[in-house]
Amino acid sequence: MFSTVAVNGEVRRWEDLPLRDFAQGFFFGAGFFTTFRIEAGRPWFLARHLARLRASLGAFPGAVRPPPPEHLTEDAVRESLQRCLRADAALGPAFQGVGKLSASDGRVLLTFRAHSPDLERLHHEGRALDSQEPGAYRRGDPTLNHKGLSYFRQYRVMERLPLLGNEAGEVCELPTANVFVQWDGALVTPPLSAPCLPGIIREVLLEAGHVGPLPVLERPVPFARLSQASACAFTNAAQVATGVPSLLGRALPDSLALAHDLRRLVEGIAARER
Amino acid sequence: MFSTVAVNGEVRRWEDLPLRDFAQGFFFGAGFFTTFRIEAGRPWFLARHLARLRASLGAFPGAVRPPPPEHLTEDAVRESLQRCLRADAALGPAFQGVGKLSASDGRVLLTFRAHSPDLERLHHEGRALDSQEPGAYRRGDPTLNHKGLSYFRQYRVMERLPLLGNEAGEVCELPTANVFVQWDGALVTPPLSAPCLPGIIREVLLEAGHVGPLPVLERPVPFARLSQASACAFTNAAQVATGVPSLLGRALPDSLALAHDLRRLVEGIAARER
Repeated sequence: MFSTVAVNGEVRRWEDLPLRDFAQGFFFGAGFFTTFRIEAGRPWFLARHLARLRASLGAFPGAVRPPPPEHLTEDAVRESLQRCLRADAALGPAFQGVGKLSASDGRVLLTFRAHSPDLERLHHEGRALDSQEPGAYRRGDPTLNHKGLSYFRQYRVMERLPLLGNEAGEVCELPTANVFVQWDGALVTPPLSAPCLPGIIREVLLEAGHVGPLPVLERPVPFARLSQASACAFTNAAQVATGVPSLLGRALPDSLALAHDLRRLVEGIAARER
Repeated sequence: MFSTVAVNGEVRRWEDLPLRDFAQGFFFGAGFFTTFRIEAGRPWFLARHLARLRASLGAFPGAVRPPPPEHLTEDAVRESLQRCLRADAALGPAFQGVGKLSASDGRVLLTFRAHSPDLERLHHEGRALDSQEPGAYRRGDPTLNHKGLSYFRQYRVMERLPLLGNEAGEVCELPTANVFVQWDGALVTPPLSAPCLPGIIREVLLEAGHVGPLPVLERPVPFARLSQASACAFTNAAQVATGVPSLLGRALPDSLALAHDLRRLVEGIAARER
């Protein structure tokens, strides 16, 4: 993480922030966050990330003290982001990497990190998924529709990256990504009630409606039907889309081309939206 | 919360602690905590609280960086607690209140707060439970057997205090307490697999085996059978036991006497153990 951060729009040093100012976030995980890609100093899909963050804060009005609303507008965050990039030569106005907004205790904290060093390799070779936790989630659990500082259910398995499922034998998501499976001439992703996070790339793809000739649909994804998939990819804001060349032991070589197509599609939309 | 705290045994000021030293706890809820009663400067059931905290850290070795083990021994925590009480006239060697140990990022943070101002009234009048979330938890969810900094599922409903249940229609716990129900000549509390937190007062009561003539048993507690309860109480380390004079709209006047008996029993055991 870079040392330059912003708190409610003010540029600060990470090492100077007191734990006291983020106490409910720390002690009770009472807060929300969102992570977004920054290309050439410009955040991707910032309006969508902020809309989700505000929606989460609005869903738990008594439990999380929200930042003043003027610090959660697109303009305010863009300005605060630019101030940070200009203030720190290690960032700079053409920064490429990942931004993060964490909201708790009446404050929004903006932080920056470099892209994962294996991002290029990930996009080139994909990432095999060879592990699963079929009953990790409960269908309809609303807390999993929010990206909260209470992130331990995901964080504890972030390295292993298992397919997390519900009690009905359906795939929900990966700890840090939404899942897309190609079968029956469509690209399918689990519904929010699975439950899963309403990921921004997921939302963009569903709104696009098609990837090449494939319709993009929200449908239950039973573990039992994964053997019928012809390709698989997972999406998140930092890596956009990653192919799954091997899914629970079965080779899916077409996944890399699928992920490539998803990235091109999302890049095009990002260029128009940002 | 009092300003005097300790980090890995060293007395510090709360306002001087940097967020940076607790980053994984804040950003990902990657840590655990325990809350214990302090009477006349002496912590109740400290050995048990530390055993549970160490067990939680041991259960997720890759995900949470534990404090050095020498800072999680009973002697070390007692000493650090005494140093804090002596260092701050607002605490003092005869302090009555609540201590908390939070472990994350290779550190254990000891903090203090006063008893809730309505503790006396709570013990005298009890607290009605008039709300429920029957499907809040999934049976067997292991993350709910640990008191984690990812506490938002409980924190979000702390004020309303609903009975949290699982998909099988069974009571699990309250957001901050274990539940005991009297029926069929026994005092019954849900099993850990419900799931619920392995609360220290719950453990002490189960080990005691009896409250007066009543055996204390771990058994599923279906919501549908709550109407057969003749008394109800909930337990946690800070308040010990609180009677429920009204359970989902049904008056249970015997609950106050039950809670009184539970408190006397636990006080006696605490006096022998500490």
